[in-house]
Amino acid sequence: MSIAEALASTIGADRVARDADALNARRYDQWAVKHLRDWRGEDVPAPGCVVRPQSALDVQKVVKLAAEKRVPLIPFGLGSGVCGGIEPTPDAILLDMSSMNRVRYIDEGDLLAGFDAGLNGMEAEEAVAAHGLTIGHWPQSIAISSVGGWVATRASGQFSTAYGNIEDIIHSIEAVLPNGELVTLGKAVRAAAGPDLRHLLMGAEGTMGVITGVTFSLREKAPHRDYSIFYADDMRAGFEVQRRIVRADWRPPVMRQYDGREVRRLFRDHERDGKAMLLMVHEGPKARVEAELAAMHEICGAAGLEAGDPMAAKQWIEKRNHVPSWRDMFQRGYVADTVEISGRWSEIGAIYDASIAALNEIPGVINASAHSSHVYRSGINLYFSFAATFEDSAKMEPAYFAGWRAIMEATAKNGGGVAHHHGAGRLRKPYLHHDLGDSGVALLRRVKQALDPEGIMNPGNLIPDA
Amino acid sequence: MSIAEALASTIGADRVARDADALNARRYDQWAVKHLRDWRGEDVPAPGCVVRPQSALDVQKVVKLAAEKRVPLIPFGLGSGVCGGIEPTPDAILLDMSSMNRVRYIDEGDLLAGFDAGLNGMEAEEAVAAHGLTIGHWPQSIAISSVGGWVATRASGQFSTAYGNIEDIIHSIEAVLPNGELVTLGKAVRAAAGPDLRHLLMGAEGTMGVITGVTFSLREKAPHRDYSIFYADDMRAGFEVQRRIVRADWRPPVMRQYDGREVRRLFRDHERDGKAMLLMVHEGPKARVEAELAAMHEICGAAGLEAGDPMAAKQWIEKRNHVPSWRDMFQRGYVADTVEISGRWSEIGAIYDASIAALNEIPGVINASAHSSHVYRSGINLYFSFAATFEDSAKMEPAYFAGWRAIMEATAKNGGGVAHHHGAGRLRKPYLHHDLGDSGVALLRRVKQALDPEGIMNPGNLIPDA
Repeated sequence: MSIAEALASTIGADRVARDADALNARRYDQWAVKHLRDWRGEDVPAPGCVVRPQSALDVQKVVKLAAEKRVPLIPFGLGSGVCGGIEPTPDAILLDMSSMNRVRYIDEGDLLAGFDAGLNGMEAEEAVAAHGLTIGHWPQSIAISSVGGWVATRASGQFSTAYGNIEDIIHSIEAVLPNGELVTLGKAVRAAAGPDLRHLLMGAEGTMGVITGVTFSLREKAPHRDYSIFYADDMRAGFEVQRRIVRADWRPPVMRQYDGREVRRLFRDHERDGKAMLLMVHEGPKARVEAELAAMHEICGAAGLEAGDPMAAKQWIEKRNHVPSWRDMFQRGYVADTVEISGRWSEIGAIYDASIAALNEIPGVINASAHSSHVYRSGINLYFSFAATFEDSAKMEPAYFAGWRAIMEATAKNGGGVAHHHGAGRLRKPYLHHDLGDSGVALLRRVKQALDPEGIMNPGNLIPDA
Repeated sequence: MSIAEALASTIGADRVARDADALNARRYDQWAVKHLRDWRGEDVPAPGCVVRPQSALDVQKVVKLAAEKRVPLIPFGLGSGVCGGIEPTPDAILLDMSSMNRVRYIDEGDLLAGFDAGLNGMEAEEAVAAHGLTIGHWPQSIAISSVGGWVATRASGQFSTAYGNIEDIIHSIEAVLPNGELVTLGKAVRAAAGPDLRHLLMGAEGTMGVITGVTFSLREKAPHRDYSIFYADDMRAGFEVQRRIVRADWRPPVMRQYDGREVRRLFRDHERDGKAMLLMVHEGPKARVEAELAAMHEICGAAGLEAGDPMAAKQWIEKRNHVPSWRDMFQRGYVADTVEISGRWSEIGAIYDASIAALNEIPGVINASAHSSHVYRSGINLYFSFAATFEDSAKMEPAYFAGWRAIMEATAKNGGGVAHHHGAGRLRKPYLHHDLGDSGVALLRRVKQALDPEGIMNPGNLIPDA
């Protein structure tokens, strides 16, 4: 009996797809490289079969079968990943979580909502919004990503500076471990009951198990919102002001700082002499928002920043969830990507300069720019964009990987962290040792070996080989 | 060669103590049970030797030797633990971290400070306070606990509702793993670079390795502080108001709610008809503190709470770090302890009622009371106190464990989490399955087995036996 037949007899033939259309549709997620290869007519492998579980019990059955037969199992949410987190092969089962898409419950009193892992993020948000609540997690991908994917990749949302990243929003995680056991981790609102095991699954990108359900701790929709815009002479001047704002214990939910190139590209009507632009959204009780806004003008003004037109921030709010089409770009002769990293305040200026310089040295690169979008007490992220153009499309893939290498190495060399919020996948795997050190990578391998001794869970992803 | 001789030749004879005074002084931490047994003249075992490393390299040498000889190794910070996290035996090495007590660095720009793990918490706080900064972590034990102990036990401070618990304050952890490897986890200000491995050590209470250094992300000392006091008819009415405050996105750093018994015992001058008292400390930029205070009066007033004298909160600030002496209590005929748990808003009232009722059913119990002290969007903690009195001191220990059992079971039965911030130790080990489930406990065991296959690290602590 083939593995597909065994799966069909275990969870139902209608849950197992082997037709070419179904398999081809699951050859990639949003990782640019796979789209580039496909667009160029190169071979992009498909999985051997696609399984669509309807319940955690279904997932347990599939995992147990995969473990028994030692067949690779690749969890797939809604396919918004951009770092090579999945790489189907004909010997693998792709576990398509999109049929597990129920809202399990919304508890308005306890501000908790439970969802199946495969539920679309915007649908989850809309479900709680109907109760005047919000998850408070707004990744750019919200309309095309799953709530389980947010957790599996340790995602960040656009309002993270006040509302936190996914690890601050998650309450509990339900998951099937590689041995087929179902765990629910995170019973308490906060616990000192041994290591917080939720963190074994958060960010594991399918290598430690399959997330089947998530519970988030919600917020009331903010009663009041306001916007502010300030211009800084350059990125370093802007970073310094953001540092002062957070140091003074202000936490505007959205703090974004675009370099001059991005202001020109994204905010043409609001360009000002090539300066960097700091865009903020302020939310909460009206009196606090007013106090915050006054403080922003005071802090920014004292640092010599010029106030701008808050309309630019409203414009951003409206367009913020746009996700580009890779194939349109290839067609127009471009290969491009975005790369997010982080750095402490003292090093972020050097990371910015070194990364932009390194990108610009790559033949074919016609744009290298960045903005920041997530702020912490001790530092900030940067979100680089780069684009290269070639007449010969065969040159695109090498330039793509050269762009990534440039940013990863410039970041690591200057002390930064190589992965802020898109996850690691196969793309960052060669650079992970910069963050973890060799002994940290060895520790990660040891944990993987303990949880998944057969190595069936998303093999090849994330964890550097020994 | 004995293990002590081997240790002496490895890290220096002056770092290895075997004299009776040194061994006897390390028979216990602050766990009431060991003090009770000692006070009653029962045998309380001492470790076989006490080792005082001066560096992470020393710790590596000790761990490697212990692993090679398969000798139990018990990390010991400054001994403020209250849950049976250490239980020395004559065959064990006690690793006394108190000589690793340096401030490694304070970076005012990046708001980071690195400390040796054995440094006293108050000394760490005073070191950063000299720069106008604060760690923002104020456990009641701050004057007698170590910064590494805060991390090893997943501690909370009194200002946690705004400033977070230790997991929100930690930047990086340096630790020696059971195989002797040194890891530094937490390079980035935030990362999506695989599972956050810091969480394997946070809360592990010495079972997964030895924390040798910690780096915290600091805050600027708040420029303004104010206080408020409100009275609620009962605990449930107070919980409901705290729920509304946090739901409206206010986060006073300190929110404490005492039941009528504790108001009478701790705030005699501020007692009001047996009502519960909500005590808050507000900190931050002046305009925000004023807005927050106004909102508190509005929210509390709308719920029918009466405002009280803020002097009660100032009084708490002054006395808050008092730690009781168990032996004084035994001498006066009492056995007592405090037990912290957590619950969602919908269940915390039932947990309070059921725990108090169960405590009062235990023969000899003369006080059962509680206050809350840490608030989250979806729930809150409770910190129970109980005391029992007996003429025959042999009855004290059974009553002590009966009190714990009463609260653990009442909490779990009503859906709460059995451990908020003191850690688990041997005291909560029998109840850990309530939080983690059987499959979660099995997962914890699997991780322990992977990191510490010889089982040398603090054996018997935390992790329920298979």
